[in-house]
Amino acid sequence: MGLYDFSIYNVIERNARIFGDRTGWIFGEEKLTHREFLNRVDRVAKGLLDRGLKRGDRIGILAQNSLEFVYLYGAAARIGAIMLPVNWRLQAEEVEYCIKDGEPSIMFAGPEFQAQVDPLVEKFDFIKHAFSMARAEGKFASFSELMDNDGHCPEPEVRFDDAYVIIHTAAIAGKPRGATLSHMGLLLSNLQVMALWHMGSNACNLGMLPLFHLAGLGTMLNVMHAGGKNIVLAKFDADAACRLIESEKVTVFVEFPPMLQTILDRNEELGCDLSSLEVVGGLEMPDTVNRFEQATGGKFWIAFGQSETSGFVTFAPYNERLGSAGVPAYIADVAIVDERGEPVEPGQQGEIVVRGPLVFKGYWNLPQDNERTFRGDWHHTGDMGRFDQDGYMWYMGRMPEKELIKPGGENVYPAEVEGVILEHPLVEDVSVIGVPDEKWGEAIKAVCVLKAGANLPEAELIEFVASKIARFKKPKHVVYVAGLPKTNDGATDRVRVKAEHGA
Amino acid sequence: MGLYDFSIYNVIERNARIFGDRTGWIFGEEKLTHREFLNRVDRVAKGLLDRGLKRGDRIGILAQNSLEFVYLYGAAARIGAIMLPVNWRLQAEEVEYCIKDGEPSIMFAGPEFQAQVDPLVEKFDFIKHAFSMARAEGKFASFSELMDNDGHCPEPEVRFDDAYVIIHTAAIAGKPRGATLSHMGLLLSNLQVMALWHMGSNACNLGMLPLFHLAGLGTMLNVMHAGGKNIVLAKFDADAACRLIESEKVTVFVEFPPMLQTILDRNEELGCDLSSLEVVGGLEMPDTVNRFEQATGGKFWIAFGQSETSGFVTFAPYNERLGSAGVPAYIADVAIVDERGEPVEPGQQGEIVVRGPLVFKGYWNLPQDNERTFRGDWHHTGDMGRFDQDGYMWYMGRMPEKELIKPGGENVYPAEVEGVILEHPLVEDVSVIGVPDEKWGEAIKAVCVLKAGANLPEAELIEFVASKIARFKKPKHVVYVAGLPKTNDGATDRVRVKAEHGA
Repeated sequence: MGLYDFSIYNVIERNARIFGDRTGWIFGEEKLTHREFLNRVDRVAKGLLDRGLKRGDRIGILAQNSLEFVYLYGAAARIGAIMLPVNWRLQAEEVEYCIKDGEPSIMFAGPEFQAQVDPLVEKFDFIKHAFSMARAEGKFASFSELMDNDGHCPEPEVRFDDAYVIIHTAAIAGKPRGATLSHMGLLLSNLQVMALWHMGSNACNLGMLPLFHLAGLGTMLNVMHAGGKNIVLAKFDADAACRLIESEKVTVFVEFPPMLQTILDRNEELGCDLSSLEVVGGLEMPDTVNRFEQATGGKFWIAFGQSETSGFVTFAPYNERLGSAGVPAYIADVAIVDERGEPVEPGQQGEIVVRGPLVFKGYWNLPQDNERTFRGDWHHTGDMGRFDQDGYMWYMGRMPEKELIKPGGENVYPAEVEGVILEHPLVEDVSVIGVPDEKWGEAIKAVCVLKAGANLPEAELIEFVASKIARFKKPKHVVYVAGLPKTNDGATDRVRVKAEHGA
Repeated sequence: MGLYDFSIYNVIERNARIFGDRTGWIFGEEKLTHREFLNRVDRVAKGLLDRGLKRGDRIGILAQNSLEFVYLYGAAARIGAIMLPVNWRLQAEEVEYCIKDGEPSIMFAGPEFQAQVDPLVEKFDFIKHAFSMARAEGKFASFSELMDNDGHCPEPEVRFDDAYVIIHTAAIAGKPRGATLSHMGLLLSNLQVMALWHMGSNACNLGMLPLFHLAGLGTMLNVMHAGGKNIVLAKFDADAACRLIESEKVTVFVEFPPMLQTILDRNEELGCDLSSLEVVGGLEMPDTVNRFEQATGGKFWIAFGQSETSGFVTFAPYNERLGSAGVPAYIADVAIVDERGEPVEPGQQGEIVVRGPLVFKGYWNLPQDNERTFRGDWHHTGDMGRFDQDGYMWYMGRMPEKELIKPGGENVYPAEVEGVILEHPLVEDVSVIGVPDEKWGEAIKAVCVLKAGANLPEAELIEFVASKIARFKKPKHVVYVAGLPKTNDGATDRVRVKAEHGA
């Protein structure tokens, strides 16, 4: 470590020094103190070092949330390795693409994903070691074997702005891109959230989001940095959520629709005490937010951010200016620019751009994309917005070339779904858009033109898509039209498609 | 500005965008909104650019606190210049030394310091411009002349880790050293304090400490970063403090003894409502702390830090572990090492060392000192401490070679006072130590050996020192002894001197 370096491992060490005997981690029946957690992280780190892992090497993982998943996050910080968590909701070909892109030298698979990872270990020479998140099976060694050591590692060599995690975001041009985040970006994002949400060592996070998503990872890191307690759930479970909020006095979580609504619905039967909740962040409809705030006394916060900005960069309590995405917070410069990159006046719409130490290091192995994304020394988010006169940002949807649909918090690019639909022999033309959805926040709608005389039941087209890419990318709605509106250059006029079919 | 850059000017701009109409600054009768403040900062910045100031140039200033002083801090951030605020409590020769060391190309003087600065402007060719903090006089142009422009500056070129301010700390080897702090260090220190003290845009700071001190500057920057309100006092005034706490609902200040005690004493007559106070930080005796907490409901916080660490690095509520200096906070690694630089076990005493982005850039123009201070990639604070089993740090005084006395928060190095005392023709030997002082926290005591047969009244020796260096460096106590204890290598054994005379 150099004079100016600080890493996420320093946070883990600090917690063990100061809050050693306090519970830091909960998974099912298992509770770990901060000191026990450090010990496990050190042993995993030593296990990785012993297998030849070095600073900058990637650690691939395809698994549901578990404590072992979190140890890996800690151990990567300890040895300067880079986490490569892969979204298990993707289709096999997409998972393979992410692994091929990141070239991990070690691969971890949850028991339910070992069959899927097995042939990849065979196929890719760069994968030197395969581990299970649980017991040994086939070519997967057991996780406990990795930890079977004294945990004594040499002094870490990690830089403040070293890469720490690669998060593959949705594919604009059909391929996912690996957003590479640094310790610096994530640590400063932590400080910002801690300052805004007044989080200290009494914070308790209910971690229901997958740890391959920045929303889930970020909130876990926020609360860990504050010295608080993290509850890790394998996946969302409303009953468990209600009971844990009461028993562990959960203060904070981040959610995607319809989680909060489901929890509130479920708790009408369970009747757990949810009054410990101070802050919930996410994307919600006003009804759910008001119901939450009345039921608990907590505050719902709205925010805007991306994996590419290490988390949220604008924030506000939801009802402070209803409909806005909040105001820029403490350590990122957020601006709106026109097509030439010039800042526009408040009230005018343009692309949201971000500058400062929260900006990610770039897309893994994509120098041309990075050049374009970072042109003019701003990160171009691909999202549109405007500022009002009081500095609140209003989110205005995605840039046409980066149209994105977020069903239940997942990222789906229309271009990818359109590509699959066009593979169907009966389809002539298609435009895929997002439409509001009460349960999931947003849903996918395909506006299709069939070939002359063709007949294709909607359900059949939907199932066709689901067989090709991740199921959450299949359209919920299909409409057939005679033709799509086109712009002068012959491209589909997405603005008009959305105006006509987006309600 | 590059992709990863963020500066203190970004904070000023953000406040104007989000809190434009809210009061950000108060000085006497004058109140400024955040928008007005940005406008003044921009005009001062333009005035500086018009006079040839460039990124990296130094702005010298010898003045009491004022809004103009704060504009200069803002303008320096705008253009990437480096502030060089000089301690006006120093003697003329020391002031001259600091200016010569920092080589400012522009010099600002408060009305009461113009006579002192006048010959220096003459003497030093590097000073191209001289301004008064108020009206034009002699070779000093008026501050309003500097601001007589439209404030339109080109895009700033400031880096996250650019130098921002040089703060001359006390002289170990007889000369002050210019601790050079970066935007990064100060901004991250802000985030840390905001997170710990739960400061948001309702924070209000009572700025009673001089702006050439990091304690004063840092707290002002903390609250500015939170979007809050700063009250600037020309100097400490207990009556004004009590009235302002009530009228402006002050939430926070940082103090040196005996400020808090004086405020509490004075308020027994004035009867102002001090209940808005949430946090006071500083060094105090338990009686005063308890009196404060009972009278206001606020919390007194203890901390450890230096100019060299961009502010505090350990913190705790005073009564959480009485006598300790708190626990390491969120973004600095704090360790205790032995003479060989090896970490020691909890319970063992050693030198306090710090690593991470809060560490300063080094002493201005002193590469050899920096090499020594930063050896092994740690900043060596020159202070001693130990950690207890729960991670609280206990401050154990200064390292023998960096013995430091802090009367009322000022830094006084015994070596400097000893050097002056030894100039007296009747003195044979001397050791200067710090002793507890009820009013000032610490007082200076000289343990002297006179030449054979000499007779020197204590008051005369004290006055001799005061005539040579800043008055706050003169001893409060003088004792004459027959001889001083020596170590094997012939040096004075400071540990024994302190044991015998330090009570």
